[in-house]
Amino acid sequence: MNLLKKSALIILFISVFLIALPSNCFSLQASATGTKNVILLIMDGTNSDVVTLSRWYKGSSLNLDSIVVGGVRTYSAQSAITDSAAAGTAMATGHKTLADYIGMIPISGRKDTRPVLTVLEAAHLHGYSTGLVSTSPIQHATPAAFSSHVNDRNDFSDIGEQQVYQNLDVALGGGKAWLHPKAEDNVKNDDGMLKTREVSRTDGENLLKEVKTNGYTLLKTREELLKKDVRNDKVWGLFANEDISYEFDRETLHPDQPSLAEMTKKAIESLSSSKNGFFLMVEGSKIDWAAHKNDPIGMISEVLSFDDAVGEALDFAKKDKNTMIIAVTDHGNSGLTIGNSSTNKDYFNQPAGNFIKPLKKAELTVKGATSQLKKDRSNLKKVLTTYGLDDLSKAEYCKIKEADDLETIEDSMVKMMAKRAHLGFTTHGHSGEDIFLYAYGPGKPTGLIENTHIPLIISEYLGIPLHSKRYDEWYINAMTYFKKKGYKVKIDKQDKDNPIFTAIKGSEKLQFPENKNYYLRNGNKVLLESVNVYSGDGFYVHVDF
Amino acid sequence: MNLLKKSALIILFISVFLIALPSNCFSLQASATGTKNVILLIMDGTNSDVVTLSRWYKGSSLNLDSIVVGGVRTYSAQSAITDSAAAGTAMATGHKTLADYIGMIPISGRKDTRPVLTVLEAAHLHGYSTGLVSTSPIQHATPAAFSSHVNDRNDFSDIGEQQVYQNLDVALGGGKAWLHPKAEDNVKNDDGMLKTREVSRTDGENLLKEVKTNGYTLLKTREELLKKDVRNDKVWGLFANEDISYEFDRETLHPDQPSLAEMTKKAIESLSSSKNGFFLMVEGSKIDWAAHKNDPIGMISEVLSFDDAVGEALDFAKKDKNTMIIAVTDHGNSGLTIGNSSTNKDYFNQPAGNFIKPLKKAELTVKGATSQLKKDRSNLKKVLTTYGLDDLSKAEYCKIKEADDLETIEDSMVKMMAKRAHLGFTTHGHSGEDIFLYAYGPGKPTGLIENTHIPLIISEYLGIPLHSKRYDEWYINAMTYFKKKGYKVKIDKQDKDNPIFTAIKGSEKLQFPENKNYYLRNGNKVLLESVNVYSGDGFYVHVDF
Repeated sequence: MNLLKKSALIILFISVFLIALPSNCFSLQASATGTKNVILLIMDGTNSDVVTLSRWYKGSSLNLDSIVVGGVRTYSAQSAITDSAAAGTAMATGHKTLADYIGMIPISGRKDTRPVLTVLEAAHLHGYSTGLVSTSPIQHATPAAFSSHVNDRNDFSDIGEQQVYQNLDVALGGGKAWLHPKAEDNVKNDDGMLKTREVSRTDGENLLKEVKTNGYTLLKTREELLKKDVRNDKVWGLFANEDISYEFDRETLHPDQPSLAEMTKKAIESLSSSKNGFFLMVEGSKIDWAAHKNDPIGMISEVLSFDDAVGEALDFAKKDKNTMIIAVTDHGNSGLTIGNSSTNKDYFNQPAGNFIKPLKKAELTVKGATSQLKKDRSNLKKVLTTYGLDDLSKAEYCKIKEADDLETIEDSMVKMMAKRAHLGFTTHGHSGEDIFLYAYGPGKPTGLIENTHIPLIISEYLGIPLHSKRYDEWYINAMTYFKKKGYKVKIDKQDKDNPIFTAIKGSEKLQFPENKNYYLRNGNKVLLESVNVYSGDGFYVHVDF
Repeated sequence: MNLLKKSALIILFISVFLIALPSNCFSLQASATGTKNVILLIMDGTNSDVVTLSRWYKGSSLNLDSIVVGGVRTYSAQSAITDSAAAGTAMATGHKTLADYIGMIPISGRKDTRPVLTVLEAAHLHGYSTGLVSTSPIQHATPAAFSSHVNDRNDFSDIGEQQVYQNLDVALGGGKAWLHPKAEDNVKNDDGMLKTREVSRTDGENLLKEVKTNGYTLLKTREELLKKDVRNDKVWGLFANEDISYEFDRETLHPDQPSLAEMTKKAIESLSSSKNGFFLMVEGSKIDWAAHKNDPIGMISEVLSFDDAVGEALDFAKKDKNTMIIAVTDHGNSGLTIGNSSTNKDYFNQPAGNFIKPLKKAELTVKGATSQLKKDRSNLKKVLTTYGLDDLSKAEYCKIKEADDLETIEDSMVKMMAKRAHLGFTTHGHSGEDIFLYAYGPGKPTGLIENTHIPLIISEYLGIPLHSKRYDEWYINAMTYFKKKGYKVKIDKQDKDNPIFTAIKGSEKLQFPENKNYYLRNGNKVLLESVNVYSGDGFYVHVDF
């Protein structure tokens, strides 16, 4: 969809359907004194039913259970059902925006967009340490929305570059492929969830080198992460070319990768060693991915993995006393229900075991199981058994054996599992319902809030005026600004992957390279407080002269 | 299912799957001084998505939005998915129980059941005024669970009789048919939701007469209700033989019936005129009924109607300052999602209007629309149009025209509406997810709670020791008790619809008629503090001598 159509949509949307919550719908408690920290944990694409099902699967209470405080409305400026980019941007910047936009919002009445400061960037400006943790590539929509500004969530090259120049203190996750020119051979468009055009950098830059130059310890395996004393250290962990394995598959298939809880614990260990307080965003990225596939095993795997990470955050916060925790999903996905058409008439006589026992038979997620399938499908029975399908009828088995492709095999497998576990699904897409809000600690929100309230609650606790005029106008249009000051301006696209904004007045030549946090003044590097953003139309920078 | 199987199930269930929440999962705030009131509002069978959809439909915030405080676990002792009887009993008594049981729980290790005191009964014992409001027959599972004790939720005769002898101060709803022997001719097994064996009393009793004798003002129409000054008056309103009309149909088809909000307002007006404080239970009964049909129009109709009732309760509580409000659903139903398989690929580009506009075309619920269908179906097009289906394809139209029966017609109609409104459904039964908790006022709960916590929170606020030994053992087994005291005991089933427990010692003859709140001592009536309950096995009474 082009920007013009999107703009028309958003205006229609705002005028007809935008429902403002009363301004007193959340209240800020008095904040504690001392160093303040915030940990925001996002379980991507998780409806209420999936959390309930995961609790039954676990057989005891979740960490999340102890911190339920309210609900969240998730719609975007474009749709009653948000995507992760618009939801991430809402939770990072306090602005509703359109699908695919990362840290960017439409300019009212125009077809262009502009970057808006994120709560992570603002926290950094105020001296807080900052960190990102995810099981997806760190360039994926949710972590991206806190640390970059692009119009297309799939532009991992630009996102990855901005992240490297964001002065993050900790970044742990997947996505190594997008930080250097020649990614390994086994990189592919994994799991149907990565729609990026490239799987390695085409701009020739080796950002892994840059990461090292910038003083980060670069970690590549679970063992390296667990062994490393990360206190008072900047760490960048890249544990997979693309995404990190589903938790249920990890021990068997990828023991070299850390769990989300392990990454979260190490991130907190590193960030809390600074005296300045910190902001950490942790994403359990792949509940959403499993939900798109309608794979209940993957969904449960990742909810429990996420809940372990919440446990790490709570352990720290309970000792620390000055840490606010917020946990949410960004939106529902898949419409999973405990109960389906097979329980139309006898739902009231379904002990939890009727749902859980078939699920417990699976050792791997559907993705994990089918990753072991040989080309000639000679080990199909074993693959099916590792997914808990050891009791297929002949017709069911033949359907899978004769399937055209892997996607069809996986789809049949998850349908057969859902049938056995009496689970319903309505969609392979997201859904639009209000979701639970979980929070703990000083300043925590309660009640029903908009997703856009989240960064405002965080920044109020941290003492940051996120929606002040200064921060709202942080990114300025360089063309307009320097033109007004008498410079001759242009955007130099000679190297199409690395456009440069240039401003010349007399003997002074200023060059702002896209995605970097510096400019050149007559060839000499001058550091900036934030990155340079090229929207494809406007070139946005922050300068103070 | 027989009791033995149920008992085996519950033991298995408890040992394997019962997950206790930590005891500190809800906290009671200090209660205000002065007269205390509690209003518990239950929207039957409503998942989160339905509330979100109803908000979009309304186009502005709901009253519920302002009082979101946490979540509730809903499973029963028998099933991960509860029915309304077990859920109602949990919320009325603080005990998880089996499907169909109303105010009854299994006796550990035996196949019999026993009645347990409800929070409404306990409130009455402590001098509080009590009231019930519902859009279903007042004998339906949820109001029944607060005011009666039977093993079978469909036993409206026993339920209705116990209610009449419960000393309620206010009862407003449907269900006139079950209070007198000869119900009107038009009584039928309405809407597929009433599974009672009879549609009028077979025991020959005219309880309408009894209601009048007991000093109630009997109201039968909306006009009578609205005109009547109900302060300092006991009122019994029966506005339909069976259920009260869906709100969207009411003005057109049943203008003689009051809305749920009107009934709630009048109930509060009456109950608050007493100086003793009150407990009121209000049920928006038919969200669940519409959900079983997968009719989104009926579901939205009843959520908005319920929300209006919440508004009345909030208006009162905000002025009164000593009123605690709790609002919940008892369980999910239908698995409705905003988004379905048609939005698999473009959910992120669905302005709310895409869902709402098709729904807004309907003037009546599917039940309301088809109630106008002539036998020869000559007005089918008009009927379809009143349900918003004015754009059917020829194939769609023919499918409905040639349908065998009304149920098939309704099923086709709701499917065509769901398709147009991009709504998903997974089941015609209930679902098992955690649901939102709404609460307001002094003593209100927060966080994730069990449904069984609700009556404990209410009774703690009202100063009632609901789970004390005295109240837990309120209903005693009359056979055992009087035998021990040297009486000759028997259950006299000569009149099979009106069994009587009889105890004789010397010249003293005691007769306890089932469902009544008195016994006869040598033929003289002696009032009791609660009703007599015959479980089909044990005969339970409360005596204090």
